[in-house]
Amino acid sequence: MENSNSSIEGNNLRVRKLELSDKSKGFLELLRQLTVCDSVSDKEFEDRFKEISMYGDDHVICVIEDEISGKIIASGSVFIEKKFIRKCGKVGHIEDVVVDAGSRGMQLGKKIVGFLADHARSMGCYKVILDCSDGNKVFYEKCEFKKKEIQMVKYFV
Amino acid sequence: MENSNSSIEGNNLRVRKLELSDKSKGFLELLRQLTVCDSVSDKEFEDRFKEISMYGDDHVICVIEDEISGKIIASGSVFIEKKFIRKCGKVGHIEDVVVDAGSRGMQLGKKIVGFLADHARSMGCYKVILDCSDGNKVFYEKCEFKKKEIQMVKYFV
Repeated sequence: MENSNSSIEGNNLRVRKLELSDKSKGFLELLRQLTVCDSVSDKEFEDRFKEISMYGDDHVICVIEDEISGKIIASGSVFIEKKFIRKCGKVGHIEDVVVDAGSRGMQLGKKIVGFLADHARSMGCYKVILDCSDGNKVFYEKCEFKKKEIQMVKYFV
Repeated sequence: MENSNSSIEGNNLRVRKLELSDKSKGFLELLRQLTVCDSVSDKEFEDRFKEISMYGDDHVICVIEDEISGKIIASGSVFIEKKFIRKCGKVGHIEDVVVDAGSRGMQLGKKIVGFLADHARSMGCYKVILDCSDGNKVFYEKCEFKKKEIQMVKYFV
């Protein structure tokens, strides 16, 4: 039996921006590997897609598609926060980085994080930040991130 | 000699949204107590103010003004991130919370954080998050936040 990794050898595993049609390519099923991600209607998906698209380069979601299976196998997002500190500086916030469990070991996570960090840099950010579990610290260190602060959270639901 | 605290007794210490005229009320000087915050021209300030204002309720900066001195003595910001996870959920990100060193002990920080968290909740966020130093953990616990993850950072400059 062929495993997922060998099946995508020869693929053009490029990172590209999320497209509306990615809903039918397993984008939400991929996010479900990260956290709770209930199904939404095509209309709900399209509305949210359009809301995010309105921000243009200030909020980018990227994906990697397995061109053989036609499935989305990695994703991540970054939004650009505009500040007054640091001479009206900007900060990139990386969120929701996920790689399909069957597609690990091919540096797809590194590709995604690299794409998002490069985008933040190209937008003039002085830094890019993200929150992760202790267990993912080593991965992000390989992506040239360093631990700095702690994340605090307040849930409403 | 009167200290800063007693001088603002009787003040209406309400939290309000940042206004363009707050540049002349020491808003940037206050941010300088938080981190590097170089001076910017009125034009640069106005341009950034307008850019942030374009996001409407999705990016709110709030302040507390000492109505006697006419100075801004506390501030913080929150922006609303739109996601696909959690049934197209939203997350509030709190940033740049600062209280003037001469105005501590009056719960201004709690007022600011409460205002920002309430705003995130009213915008339909399922949670609000922020990053802070270990030293500020206890303060945010008093604001009903809990430690969750770690923050990783990559600097470009």
